[in-house]
Amino acid sequence: MSSLTFRQQHSDKNSKARTAIITTDHGEIATPVFMPVGTAGSVKAITQQQLENDIHASIILGNTYHLYLRPGLEILKEAGGLHQFMNWKKPILTDSGGYQVFSLAASRKIKEDGVIFQSHIDGSKHLFSPEYVIDIQRLIGADIIMAFDECPPHPSDHKYTKKSMELTHRWLDRCFTHFGHTENKYGHTQNLFPIVQGGIYADLRKQSCEYIAGKNAVGNAIGGLSVGEPEEMMYEFTALCCDHLPEKKPRYLMGVGTPWNILECISLGVDMFDCVMPTRNGRNAMLFTTKGVINIDNKKWEKDFSPLDEGLDCAISNYYSKSYLRHLMKSRELLGLTIASIQNLAFYVWLMKQAKEHIIAGDFNNWKNEMIPILKQKV
Amino acid sequence: MSSLTFRQQHSDKNSKARTAIITTDHGEIATPVFMPVGTAGSVKAITQQQLENDIHASIILGNTYHLYLRPGLEILKEAGGLHQFMNWKKPILTDSGGYQVFSLAASRKIKEDGVIFQSHIDGSKHLFSPEYVIDIQRLIGADIIMAFDECPPHPSDHKYTKKSMELTHRWLDRCFTHFGHTENKYGHTQNLFPIVQGGIYADLRKQSCEYIAGKNAVGNAIGGLSVGEPEEMMYEFTALCCDHLPEKKPRYLMGVGTPWNILECISLGVDMFDCVMPTRNGRNAMLFTTKGVINIDNKKWEKDFSPLDEGLDCAISNYYSKSYLRHLMKSRELLGLTIASIQNLAFYVWLMKQAKEHIIAGDFNNWKNEMIPILKQKV
Repeated sequence: MSSLTFRQQHSDKNSKARTAIITTDHGEIATPVFMPVGTAGSVKAITQQQLENDIHASIILGNTYHLYLRPGLEILKEAGGLHQFMNWKKPILTDSGGYQVFSLAASRKIKEDGVIFQSHIDGSKHLFSPEYVIDIQRLIGADIIMAFDECPPHPSDHKYTKKSMELTHRWLDRCFTHFGHTENKYGHTQNLFPIVQGGIYADLRKQSCEYIAGKNAVGNAIGGLSVGEPEEMMYEFTALCCDHLPEKKPRYLMGVGTPWNILECISLGVDMFDCVMPTRNGRNAMLFTTKGVINIDNKKWEKDFSPLDEGLDCAISNYYSKSYLRHLMKSRELLGLTIASIQNLAFYVWLMKQAKEHIIAGDFNNWKNEMIPILKQKV
Repeated sequence: MSSLTFRQQHSDKNSKARTAIITTDHGEIATPVFMPVGTAGSVKAITQQQLENDIHASIILGNTYHLYLRPGLEILKEAGGLHQFMNWKKPILTDSGGYQVFSLAASRKIKEDGVIFQSHIDGSKHLFSPEYVIDIQRLIGADIIMAFDECPPHPSDHKYTKKSMELTHRWLDRCFTHFGHTENKYGHTQNLFPIVQGGIYADLRKQSCEYIAGKNAVGNAIGGLSVGEPEEMMYEFTALCCDHLPEKKPRYLMGVGTPWNILECISLGVDMFDCVMPTRNGRNAMLFTTKGVINIDNKKWEKDFSPLDEGLDCAISNYYSKSYLRHLMKSRELLGLTIASIQNLAFYVWLMKQAKEHIIAGDFNNWKNEMIPILKQKV
């Protein structure tokens, strides 16, 4: 049992991109890394076997808000944590539930102590405090657990954003205190990442980065971006945060984004990503491929019997044709949702591996600039 | 390329059960066999990889009615048939579409020439004639294709049932004539099975069996059972048909049924089965297991962390717990539908293998009588 380590390996000369190995008690994670989102203990429509063998995921994400409501703490505890419950043997990261409380709950009220909210499932009332959210994540057994934060909506004015950031910082102190007073639950080390907030205000972002860096955590996260602001602004603040967060610790940009967003943010110094886009868009017939974006509902694929994506090292992407997947989606066959989700996640994971190889080869920036227009194009 | 053969191996002394090997150009099928139903070119919620590696299916069934409507003949033809389209390399059997025209179509009108019906998808009008249904199945490329029949509803009186049976026999002549005048499409031999009708009237069933046997087909099917009649009546007419159909040809009982129905009918001399029950009931939280029937929605499974079914040689059934599957079903996670469907199909296929081994061992009847109460019990 030992705390998460971040062993940097290669740095790109022409950008801030780098490769590293994160080590946890559930194994190693090569960065840059994309983490598939397994909201309620399942990456939607995908078996754990497919996650490992077809997608080659090295870490997945769970949502504290969802897991707390269903299956609930009692079952997760008796199961021996989420790893045991879902039988996933590699690392798990859980978010703090903060973002979902603001985006999903039926109602919420923010107080100094925490947030009182109503479940979107049955309307029941609950309180998430910094301490409780640490307890919940301890109990879920995630390898990486996130501090409780407020993520203000975009746009919020400077005054509100500052007030919110300061609350997040006070909550952060309480998270670290409580984290230090509580123990690992299932025989593996859990690691706490703080989250930078500060909206779209450079002074606040810098202040937040310094506050977060002061915690000397084993890794740091950037929150409150990709919440509706223009793409260029998201890059600007990601760059600013990367420059003000510790160099020798992993940087995790929460909830971002498209394949091209991710490549740009790797070049700014981000190491870890998660997003529901590959699975959610997949279920809506949008495929990310090595040749560009495909709307598989389009009639042009009706008689295209070529494999979904031969560029990927994924048995599913090589096995099924565009025509077949289009038919499944048109016929509302559940298998269509599975195949599309696997294609998109396998693509995201593949893209991270490519990025890593190009950082090692020293041509990351050129490759990225050539790659982005290809990935963006509608084929 | 050669026609389907049926190589009998073992016969049970205390019943009519037997084992055999059916050989087709897409490989061998050990009987008794259960054929998972892949309605529209997909066994619902299951990948072809899972069908092969987790379920160990040796043949699957496709529905002519569904495939004709979607993806349609043009796409199937250009794909090179259903095997290519869905990338399934083992044998495929297609039904004739007759049953679906009567049970699913928005409206239908039976004439001597065939059946005019409206699509349940878009209301478009179509005609299925014996000749056309042979053409469609030729084009789908199934290894075993079924004659076009009318399946009268239960109950139907003797007069209507007789009239309907005679129509089915005239259609059968036309099917065989047209089958003889048309060619295999994709380099493998296609085989036509006629279907016995005659409702719940012994004289008609006998007459139909004799008519069907006269065709000297490579295999024969029993239709029009398990359509609402009492279980004992279904057994009675299955027994009667088995006794009047050729001994040295496979007997296929269409659309039956529960695990215990299948064991009973094996003892009556049936070799081949299909049914939507394992997948449909699985999607509705009903599991068939080696220990009995489980309603996985039941609160009693909430904290049962034992594997779904350790009795099966299926990685999925051994990997996921009852508690986890219950959570997935409660949370309406798509993965729950996949796991439950795989469990049930793996169980059905396992049950056929067990039956075969007990026929070989010579204790089939005793084993069946001990097994049925176990399989039926609600655990």
